Amino acid sequence: MAAEETTPLFLEDFAVGQKYASGRLRVEAADVRAFASAFDPQPFHLDEDAARASFFAGLAASGWHTAALTMRLLVDSGFRPAGGIIGTRADELTWPRAVRPGDELEVEAEVLEVRPSRTRPGHGFIKCRATTLNQRREPVQVLVMNLLVERRK
Amino acid sequence: MAAEETTPLFLEDFAVGQKYASGRLRVEAADVRAFASAFDPQPFHLDEDAARASFFAGLAASGWHTAALTMRLLVDSGFRPAGGIIGTRADELTWPRAVRPGDELEVEAEVLEVRPSRTRPGHGFIKCRATTLNQRREPVQVLVMNLLVERRK
Repeated sequence: MAAEETTPLFLEDFAVGQKYASGRLRVEAADVRAFASAFDPQPFHLDEDAARASFFAGLAASGWHTAALTMRLLVDSGFRPAGGIIGTRADELTWPRAVRPGDELEVEAEVLEVRPSRTRPGHGFIKCRATTLNQRREPVQVLVMNLLVERRK
Repeated sequence: MAAEETTPLFLEDFAVGQKYASGRLRVEAADVRAFASAFDPQPFHLDEDAARASFFAGLAASGWHTAALTMRLLVDSGFRPAGGIIGTRADELTWPRAVRPGDELEVEAEVLEVRPSRTRPGHGFIKCRATTLNQRREPVQVLVMNLLVERRK
């Protein structure tokens, strides 16, 4: 990772159209089952046989697991808003296709809006689209998220 | 839990205005840190001292942890769509306030829309608002989600 990628980015550093790419992360069947056991214990996230007979026609990760993995990829990437990645509101969150064991995920983020806060003088908001892709570059999640970002002092 | 609560609900069983309530779940500091270590390793989700100096002014759960716990509460509740709880798209996801260690969460869900699918004859969609509340009944997450539901055969 280049040194510049670890410098915190203030509101003034963001501009519409900027793009960020994450590293990659492989999702194992054991990860799918462990997340599901804790947070989404439905048969199609836990058991291969039950999953085969379900809507998913095979073991599939919980959408909330995909969301959590997307956050991990973003936190580990060069996308470093000052004050941290603090989401306040998602305007869109879709899962166009299932994440399967063995999939390798990566995230591409694009800045859609940059605006100062009307109520918090030291802060502003950026709106980003974070698209999570599998190893065939098919989108598995699209998240449009508003983030709180510090202004330069 | 009453027997009727475990009967799967088909599209025809849902109607606008129906409400569902979950059980309760206590969030411990160790849970907050464990989720953050795996999926959202930012200082304000991991370390009490670092969190005190942050926007959150104290240790706070990742919003994705709150989302995952909300799913767990829904899966364990009497809200049982036939085929499972399969979200296709969130129209809104907000975190009006932070979840803190020691908070006790519960979810209230309300059916907002019921519609057959145009492309999948055996299925339809329901739109629900799931509001996650803390022990003071303050909302910590509002999720408006479209779910795929089976039609009665």
